[in-house]
Amino acid sequence: MSHEPYSVVELITAKRDGGTLSGEQVDWLIDAYVRGVVADEQMSALAMAVFFRGLEPAELARWTAAMIASGERLDFSGLSRPTADKHSTGGVGDKITLPLAPLVAACGVAVPQLSGRGLGHTGGTLDKLESIPGWRAELSNAEMMAQLESVGAVICAAGAGLAPADKKLYALRDVTGTVESIPLIASSIMSKKIAEGTGTLVLDVKVGSGAFMKSHEHADALARTMVGLGTDAGVRTVALLTDMSTPLGLTAGNALEVAESVEVLAGGGPADVVELTLALAREMLAGAGRDDVDPAEALADGRAMDVWKAMIRAQGGDPDAALPTARDTETITAEADGVLTRLDALAVGVAAWRLGAGRAAKHHTVQAAAGVELHAKPGDRVRGGQPLLTLHTNTPERFGPARESLAGAYEIADAPSEARRLILDRIS
Amino acid sequence: MSHEPYSVVELITAKRDGGTLSGEQVDWLIDAYVRGVVADEQMSALAMAVFFRGLEPAELARWTAAMIASGERLDFSGLSRPTADKHSTGGVGDKITLPLAPLVAACGVAVPQLSGRGLGHTGGTLDKLESIPGWRAELSNAEMMAQLESVGAVICAAGAGLAPADKKLYALRDVTGTVESIPLIASSIMSKKIAEGTGTLVLDVKVGSGAFMKSHEHADALARTMVGLGTDAGVRTVALLTDMSTPLGLTAGNALEVAESVEVLAGGGPADVVELTLALAREMLAGAGRDDVDPAEALADGRAMDVWKAMIRAQGGDPDAALPTARDTETITAEADGVLTRLDALAVGVAAWRLGAGRAAKHHTVQAAAGVELHAKPGDRVRGGQPLLTLHTNTPERFGPARESLAGAYEIADAPSEARRLILDRIS
Repeated sequence: MSHEPYSVVELITAKRDGGTLSGEQVDWLIDAYVRGVVADEQMSALAMAVFFRGLEPAELARWTAAMIASGERLDFSGLSRPTADKHSTGGVGDKITLPLAPLVAACGVAVPQLSGRGLGHTGGTLDKLESIPGWRAELSNAEMMAQLESVGAVICAAGAGLAPADKKLYALRDVTGTVESIPLIASSIMSKKIAEGTGTLVLDVKVGSGAFMKSHEHADALARTMVGLGTDAGVRTVALLTDMSTPLGLTAGNALEVAESVEVLAGGGPADVVELTLALAREMLAGAGRDDVDPAEALADGRAMDVWKAMIRAQGGDPDAALPTARDTETITAEADGVLTRLDALAVGVAAWRLGAGRAAKHHTVQAAAGVELHAKPGDRVRGGQPLLTLHTNTPERFGPARESLAGAYEIADAPSEARRLILDRIS
Repeated sequence: MSHEPYSVVELITAKRDGGTLSGEQVDWLIDAYVRGVVADEQMSALAMAVFFRGLEPAELARWTAAMIASGERLDFSGLSRPTADKHSTGGVGDKITLPLAPLVAACGVAVPQLSGRGLGHTGGTLDKLESIPGWRAELSNAEMMAQLESVGAVICAAGAGLAPADKKLYALRDVTGTVESIPLIASSIMSKKIAEGTGTLVLDVKVGSGAFMKSHEHADALARTMVGLGTDAGVRTVALLTDMSTPLGLTAGNALEVAESVEVLAGGGPADVVELTLALAREMLAGAGRDDVDPAEALADGRAMDVWKAMIRAQGGDPDAALPTARDTETITAEADGVLTRLDALAVGVAAWRLGAGRAAKHHTVQAAAGVELHAKPGDRVRGGQPLLTLHTNTPERFGPARESLAGAYEIADAPSEARRLILDRIS
């Protein structure tokens, strides 16, 4: 005979009928779910009720706090430098973490960047870095702390000890059609980020076809919800809403994106990647009290590249080793002269995924060299016959499905369309 | 690697977002749930989405058909008499099946009444009959058929072979806060009733505090939905909406209700029990083409009692044996002279349940003799000090909790309130 203080069926029906759960009820619910007293089929029904009814701000804050309390919480207060962290909601060609973490570290702010692997059409930061020979994602907390002190930046796998309630709930939501709930998305992201113990957090909330949030309105609501949760938890939090209607930069795929990141760290690289890297770096530095430093200088003078190399070496990688290249490539060319007015992010992401850059299930492996290379971006002039896209893979039978995804994914017009803005909004 | 034609997450999100499932999708969903391909946590999320989004009439008909197709279907077409069945959505003191089945059989229409045990504050027909010494609820299909031919009436436990999908889904809904959905309630009831193979079905949809449906509006919607499903499936179906603001008759509890039913079969009994028994009998007879027979005569001349005795004997019971009585009783008396204007059905049901007449979990046993006896009904004049209620139990420590349920459950006023109507509506 158990002596639980609440009946989960009563909590589900209360939420279902538009009620608000008390703080004690939320604490019990999350804890009882981790203990297995609340069963998966009960939590999924509740998650669906939350999809329809939402969570009040106080409920959401308590929900997030309960997920944090379900696991360990990192503490960087012993470091000699302030810390800043970044989280992106995920986009196609979004390799920004790679140049950003060493850049911010080069400016005197430590960056503890706990990351994940990719699932579906957006790549994972760890998958990208694993294309570097020797690099390893798994670090102990002590190794991470030591590397933050010595190098200033670390990008590694998030340990299972952080917010285990979120881990369990996210896996459940993924198979029960309850992912697309703003309070549940916000609490999932923020519980992990707050548990990671950073002092400053900058959120890159993507909007557009290649992003999870397709509309500005939903992205704005998610950003405001997350900024509120972070601020309430004592983390200086700011969000940028950024465009994800077309891929970031000129590459989507693991090794291809590492190479492009290295170009940025060498002072070159595509303009949009540089622009977003600098914008996010400035927010992180400002949050950490270092707005006196100009990150553009640290890119130009090679300091960011030095931290990059030290960071890769510290995790067993060889930053000077050649990156893997694909055995087979195919090129898609422009049919006519004109201006490229559209190149759809989702289509490119799905193509890269189908070529082998992503995984369809968690136990799948990825091809380091697979992906899509862009030779033009929206706004660029193209000539008929000129290469538009190059597809890379080790499994050429995947060219067909990748081409299918790209059919109708771009447009060449006589006149340019309105110029694209990369950074759409800032929420603090 | 399985080769399922659909992704359940896509079906859940389609329903969640207001879409309609195709017939093939519904068939697959129910079948895949029975096979375990669709997991409980997926079905409960879908059930919650159905709570919010409903089911279109075509979806609901297909859903019900798929649940019927998940198991066996009885066939009474070989009987020499037409069949009629009754289903009540459950109320306090609702013993109507007991006099009704033998009464209709005495009028020439066979009654195959598959019933359940009670859970919560409404009693189960089988629990009531099991207070008769020797009576057994479990019959094989062959025994049931033989008894229908020889006696004309059978009240027995529904076999596990009928609508197993509903059995599994109902157990899931019960623990996931997804019971209160009109299409899911309607499909649950009607899948079993249609699978039972009756030609005519009369539904007694209860409305009021002691009923599952508290409002006339919801009861009306449920009744219309069920009548639609039955009619579409070729079963002549009619529903009566009946009052459940106060208990039916003067008893709530297993043996107490059997004794009251026998009074009705002997030509006496409380007026409301007689009125509802006759009204439902007339509907069943009319549906089966025997509206030439007057059931009141079969009650008055003892033919219904003869069938009752034969029915009890056929299932091993002794209809003349003394019924169990409780070791302890307590009486609640009226505080003042006046008219009893209210006696709440839910409060009486909960009191009977707490005294031992019902179970809190499926594996609990019930006390045959426990329950509540009413000495007055709303509209009756009472005098101060006169007994209002007698509580019966073998476990006197339960008197306290039962009295708690009854506190504030009745009102004695100077002037009578508006007369109560028992039969509120008829839907065909």
